[in-house]
Amino acid sequence: MKPDMKSLALACREAAVAVAALGPAAKRDLLLDMARRIEADAAGILVANAVDLRRAEGSGISAAMLDRLRLDPERIAGVARGLREVAALPDPVGQVTHRDTRPNGVLVERVRVPLGVIAMIYEARPNVTVDAAALCLKAGNGVILRGGSEAIHSNRALAALLGDALAAAGLPRSALTLVEDLRRETMVELLQLTDIVDLAIPRGGEGLIRFVAEHARVPVIKHYKGVCHLYVDRHADIELALGLLIDGKTTRPSACNALETLLVHADIAEAFLPRAAAALAAHGVEMRACERSRALIAQARAASEDDYAAEFLDLVIAIRMVDDLDAAIAHIRRYGSDHTEVIATGDEGSARRFVESLRSAVVMVNASSRFSDGGELGLGAEIGISTTRLHAYGPMGLEALTIERYVLRGRGQVRHPRTPP
Amino acid sequence: MKPDMKSLALACREAAVAVAALGPAAKRDLLLDMARRIEADAAGILVANAVDLRRAEGSGISAAMLDRLRLDPERIAGVARGLREVAALPDPVGQVTHRDTRPNGVLVERVRVPLGVIAMIYEARPNVTVDAAALCLKAGNGVILRGGSEAIHSNRALAALLGDALAAAGLPRSALTLVEDLRRETMVELLQLTDIVDLAIPRGGEGLIRFVAEHARVPVIKHYKGVCHLYVDRHADIELALGLLIDGKTTRPSACNALETLLVHADIAEAFLPRAAAALAAHGVEMRACERSRALIAQARAASEDDYAAEFLDLVIAIRMVDDLDAAIAHIRRYGSDHTEVIATGDEGSARRFVESLRSAVVMVNASSRFSDGGELGLGAEIGISTTRLHAYGPMGLEALTIERYVLRGRGQVRHPRTPP
Repeated sequence: MKPDMKSLALACREAAVAVAALGPAAKRDLLLDMARRIEADAAGILVANAVDLRRAEGSGISAAMLDRLRLDPERIAGVARGLREVAALPDPVGQVTHRDTRPNGVLVERVRVPLGVIAMIYEARPNVTVDAAALCLKAGNGVILRGGSEAIHSNRALAALLGDALAAAGLPRSALTLVEDLRRETMVELLQLTDIVDLAIPRGGEGLIRFVAEHARVPVIKHYKGVCHLYVDRHADIELALGLLIDGKTTRPSACNALETLLVHADIAEAFLPRAAAALAAHGVEMRACERSRALIAQARAASEDDYAAEFLDLVIAIRMVDDLDAAIAHIRRYGSDHTEVIATGDEGSARRFVESLRSAVVMVNASSRFSDGGELGLGAEIGISTTRLHAYGPMGLEALTIERYVLRGRGQVRHPRTPP
Repeated sequence: MKPDMKSLALACREAAVAVAALGPAAKRDLLLDMARRIEADAAGILVANAVDLRRAEGSGISAAMLDRLRLDPERIAGVARGLREVAALPDPVGQVTHRDTRPNGVLVERVRVPLGVIAMIYEARPNVTVDAAALCLKAGNGVILRGGSEAIHSNRALAALLGDALAAAGLPRSALTLVEDLRRETMVELLQLTDIVDLAIPRGGEGLIRFVAEHARVPVIKHYKGVCHLYVDRHADIELALGLLIDGKTTRPSACNALETLLVHADIAEAFLPRAAAALAAHGVEMRACERSRALIAQARAASEDDYAAEFLDLVIAIRMVDDLDAAIAHIRRYGSDHTEVIATGDEGSARRFVESLRSAVVMVNASSRFSDGGELGLGAEIGISTTRLHAYGPMGLEALTIERYVLRGRGQVRHPRTPP
């Protein structure tokens, strides 16, 4: 009989105590050993991946999904490189983020400690198995990995190698627990293990994320989608704005930090929109625009309400002319997803008001939305992006997998001193 | 017809945008005006409170509950003083917590912004209505207050005065929304308004908190109870340990940071326990001890398993002799509530191992557990204490009512630069 979800999670929690006690060097060596083992057994991983690919092809899976599922020697090398990059990052555990001596002489420190047990829920891409495990372990946590059924053979092969590295370091394999029972009800059980699982992070399509949010009783950090806006202000430099538009829309349209909607101030529309349309068309981008914009863009079809709320994840962009900054802000508040918004402007007042009026996780002045990424922001690596306004907001790195607690040191201070007897 | 919970919450969210836009001076002035209005209408508040007290007396409520419900001129002065203290705190909104220029010249800042809408769920004490409102508003949030039915007249009177101050400042009254429909199903509806309510904070007895945790779909930060430990190491200074014991147990036994269990290293037990027992007995503390301890403490009755897990909230203490530091750590891991633990020791190695082995929110060396409090730790004020290992861990001040987001400033940088056409 297989162990049930709760027993697996309890074992992971127990093992997490051992991971939390590891020093920086031990964690670095562990991840480097994982990288070596993955390179050494690339052939075995590819064999397992081939099984997944064969089954997926038979099931009529989409070409994009098939691509995400596929491993090849280059991708495996990338996975090992990712492990080495995480190994090289500064260890967040034990960092003192605040230090203060109180008037009574008690030293108060805030110190980063691991969260405990993190459950990752994800879909096709087997490299998430390794990336997520590396980040969670580096931050001193136990990790429960629940990947998609289409990648189960690949995930099993990868998790077994990572587990070998744990065992070789004298750590319990259960510090990294791959869930092999992929029934939905088992996932729901995992998501309801309050007091055992400290955080669930879903990564994948909006359907999966909504399912997790709906069923979880443990804390969840998530983002549903990235409906990112570029607002071209009347004071924008047109060349600069064109650069942000093309970079934001065309360099990786499937990314959540790609642009979905272009808002243009009416005063600059005549100068900007025809050039923007020509550049977008040259990159094969389909345009869906408001009536006023269409007067300036021959090739645009009419935008619907739905287009302004859409995350196209494709070479499609919604376009709207607005009368002023306030109208742009109102549009973003209404249709945005709190992910990433950009203003192109030469006016400091407009920039400030744009930044202060929007509550999105990442707001930029004259920079590409594609910088909304853990690596680009200097976090070293990214476990996900949060549009949940709690704990972490925006790209999440190692620090988001820890929590600050208080450590006090005194010399016997008490709150109500008494005169000695 | 009264507006339903969702409409009230939506109005609060809308109003929260106006609160978020307030500068530090405007928020300070708002809270000072609230303090003035409460002092000026102390008589009206006492009349409303008398109605609550009369009803409560008729309902056979406990004396402790009645005391928590009672306002008097001194307590009202304390409420006004609390408002002025929060007014004087540094404004967390807009604080830049991190600044970094990336190699490409993009300036990356992390900046504190309000969470949005915070729902406070609490019981008898009407002063929470004012304290919580002050902290939430100071941090730029909208606040929904759902107090207990026993305090409804007092809460209404207080909320009306606070609302007058909002209106006088040109702000929507709905920025502070008192829930007057106190049916349980309405509270459940509030707790399930995902996408409107950003955080729920329950304060009160364990029953209320478990109800909130069970029914909430919005994020909840909470602590169930405080089972705080004092471990007296073999290397402890006995006088120092006695001071921590008496301060921790007797100065306010109903507080969550009061001591509940005393653990004593066997090597020091003979020297320490008889003196500890005499001091505890002199303060009227009932002792429940393990067999080995009872050999040294005549007046102790036998401790049960339940006693080691109990938050007595009273002049009762559980006592256990342990063979070493590891046994103390194992006991705390098993019975603790992740709130506050104290070691009394003169040995740096024992101190370090105690701190590193325990995952509690607050861990102390040679200082009283009673310092586990927002004011004592320098937070200025406290909205609650979290033993949820996410977002905030331990006493929560203003900072815990905000979140850091990213603001980027560039000069047109893109992720994939192109050669100009």
